Amino acid sequence: MLDTYAVALGGQSEPACLAAGQYLDAPGLDPQGVSTVWGLRRKTSPEVAALINGVAAHVLDYDDVSSPLRGHPSVVLWPALAALGEYTDMPTAKMASAYLVGFEVMLKLARGFAISQYATGWHTTASIGIIGATAACAHLLGLNIFQTSHAIGLAVAQTGGSRQNVGTQAKSFQAGHANAAAVRAVLMAQAGFEASPEALDGPFGYFALYAQDRNGGNELFSMGKGALEFECIGIDVKKYPMCYATHRALDAVTDLMTTHKIHCDDIESVTVQTNSGALIPLVHPSPERGLEGKFSMQYGVAAMLLDGQVCLSSFTDAAVARPSVRALMRRIAVRETDSPIAPRWAEVCIRTKNTAVYTQKSELLRGSAAAPLSENEMLLKVKDCLEWGNYNVDTAKLYKAVMRLGEGHSRSYFQQIYETLL
Amino acid sequence: MLDTYAVALGGQSEPACLAAGQYLDAPGLDPQGVSTVWGLRRKTSPEVAALINGVAAHVLDYDDVSSPLRGHPSVVLWPALAALGEYTDMPTAKMASAYLVGFEVMLKLARGFAISQYATGWHTTASIGIIGATAACAHLLGLNIFQTSHAIGLAVAQTGGSRQNVGTQAKSFQAGHANAAAVRAVLMAQAGFEASPEALDGPFGYFALYAQDRNGGNELFSMGKGALEFECIGIDVKKYPMCYATHRALDAVTDLMTTHKIHCDDIESVTVQTNSGALIPLVHPSPERGLEGKFSMQYGVAAMLLDGQVCLSSFTDAAVARPSVRALMRRIAVRETDSPIAPRWAEVCIRTKNTAVYTQKSELLRGSAAAPLSENEMLLKVKDCLEWGNYNVDTAKLYKAVMRLGEGHSRSYFQQIYETLL
Repeated sequence: MLDTYAVALGGQSEPACLAAGQYLDAPGLDPQGVSTVWGLRRKTSPEVAALINGVAAHVLDYDDVSSPLRGHPSVVLWPALAALGEYTDMPTAKMASAYLVGFEVMLKLARGFAISQYATGWHTTASIGIIGATAACAHLLGLNIFQTSHAIGLAVAQTGGSRQNVGTQAKSFQAGHANAAAVRAVLMAQAGFEASPEALDGPFGYFALYAQDRNGGNELFSMGKGALEFECIGIDVKKYPMCYATHRALDAVTDLMTTHKIHCDDIESVTVQTNSGALIPLVHPSPERGLEGKFSMQYGVAAMLLDGQVCLSSFTDAAVARPSVRALMRRIAVRETDSPIAPRWAEVCIRTKNTAVYTQKSELLRGSAAAPLSENEMLLKVKDCLEWGNYNVDTAKLYKAVMRLGEGHSRSYFQQIYETLL
Repeated sequence: MLDTYAVALGGQSEPACLAAGQYLDAPGLDPQGVSTVWGLRRKTSPEVAALINGVAAHVLDYDDVSSPLRGHPSVVLWPALAALGEYTDMPTAKMASAYLVGFEVMLKLARGFAISQYATGWHTTASIGIIGATAACAHLLGLNIFQTSHAIGLAVAQTGGSRQNVGTQAKSFQAGHANAAAVRAVLMAQAGFEASPEALDGPFGYFALYAQDRNGGNELFSMGKGALEFECIGIDVKKYPMCYATHRALDAVTDLMTTHKIHCDDIESVTVQTNSGALIPLVHPSPERGLEGKFSMQYGVAAMLLDGQVCLSSFTDAAVARPSVRALMRRIAVRETDSPIAPRWAEVCIRTKNTAVYTQKSELLRGSAAAPLSENEMLLKVKDCLEWGNYNVDTAKLYKAVMRLGEGHSRSYFQQIYETLL
């Protein structure tokens, strides 16, 4: 949750967020709603708050990740749950269990068909996420089994999201829409609106249309029969605000710098090696703009060596253009080996001017479920996001407020969080 | 437009509309918006008004039809345009041209792939309609070419609607959602939100996902190069509030009754013949409930013979159970011939107790674009709808107000229409 708030607030100055904020001013949109738009500290309807917060939390592509989902789980759960939780004064323990319900449904569906759905062109964060978000919201509101079935049918009626929109602001819109549609679906179902009980698995239902297979949802039947998906795979939190394919190498560079006190000026050359296929997304060996830098192993490693960190301000056009970083990038060689695509690894070898050679291989991803960020590392990420979004927030206080999930009821829970943002 | 208002108001007492109205009371939805919810004479945001009016105008399945679309055109255009037109004070001539733009886009897409998309399981009214509605709304707001492209990309992000939901309230929800999504898409795009310019025809875009064919949109290129689709095919207005497959037979019965002054008590037997395959949707030869009666040729013909009309009150459970109608139904035989599925026809043969035999074959559909309803017939339909919805409305005044499309500006245009509904 903390990660979701942090990246949402960090994204506030992005053009997508500015446009979404302007949309909030369209005549007729409620200026006196009950649900908070996080970055603007304004209130609106639950649907619109869910939409805009979902956009904000995804626009930096820095929010948490689930590999089996081929996408981002929290960004299609928390904005919707928070929007509903703010006016239904639920125990916050129920907020937490609703999150787990949504996560579980989403991951079971993902195990059924995320790979093929993603390959077809669907943006699984949105197209699978919307069903999970609806299940989560239905659980939060305590809908009965019929209402829940209707809500899922209404979610199917609104499911979309194409990978063609990836790389544009509409990617984050798709995440936001999944939240808004979930909120709409459960509120309509709660009001008595009906849908097909076979909207998922009927001959013309979701599995047939979006998974080309009516049995695509069979994994759902394993729900409740073993450990939770959340326990098995957890969530990967992005430590660095750039393409995930660079993260292992950046972890290795961090380790080398810490262990050997390497100074940037002493470096003769750097070699980064990794699995075959692992460099596919890194299409900018010599980036000229900040956004291109996010998809450059050379730039990421150079920035880490030069600055001792890779943070949001590393990806301005000016930061990428620095002569010092360009000079260092020329000493960095990056290559794929012919080792298979999994298990993933990266190895960094630094040769210093006095011919010392330091090598570090990294397999675990720092921030992933298998190697979670420490409290301190998490707070550093939060601080980076909030500074980038120009928020003067007491991060420790925000952390404490968010961590109270499980205590008390939702209205006062959210009030305390939003007070720290003022 | 008149037809859309009439069927929307007629549907107000349906459970779907009652639930949608209750949703409007969910905390945080704007009680002081700028766009009118037709049936409730309340105001809300354009998105929510577009959603609820779209539901209302489709819930009776009595709204206008386009055969190439395999669906209903006006219900995914007018609620969205009206919601936007009420706060942007546009010339109403622009409302009319926006309707045509939406219709044209929708029908060109439909010619490309409506048949295969419908067969796959998509509810084309929604899944094609949303793109047409977005184009219409973009034209109304005067978005530039880039904003229009972004709006269409945002519409693609929200496109859904499965035929699995047909036969449930969610069918009308899907029509409403198409309107709401169109309004959201254009308002976001107007505020500067961006999407992929290839959201329709890119490798992972709409054509690839929803039409399994990147060339599925080629018909779009013929836009502006010949007569408008609206001129070529027009719109079919439903004269009777039941399955379209009964309409030709009902027209023939009407003609026979008018020409030969046949009295119900004189009838010995009735035979209805039609094309092969034409009776497929008519699955209730002996209906027990009103809704089943809508899919019964026997009931439709008997009700017409007995009551001299088939109107909304013909489809209560009580009306279907009347002994007089049951007795008459037993004298009605219905059969398909082996003549091909097109051109469509129905032939009704009535044998009286004094052995006279009257036969009438019907090909043209009364109310279709080829044989439009007269002003008087249209007003009868409007009156039936309004009475059914318990509205005490001066139909002539409503007719006059709606027909002023093309004169003046939209805000006062809608004000005059909504005043007649008070």
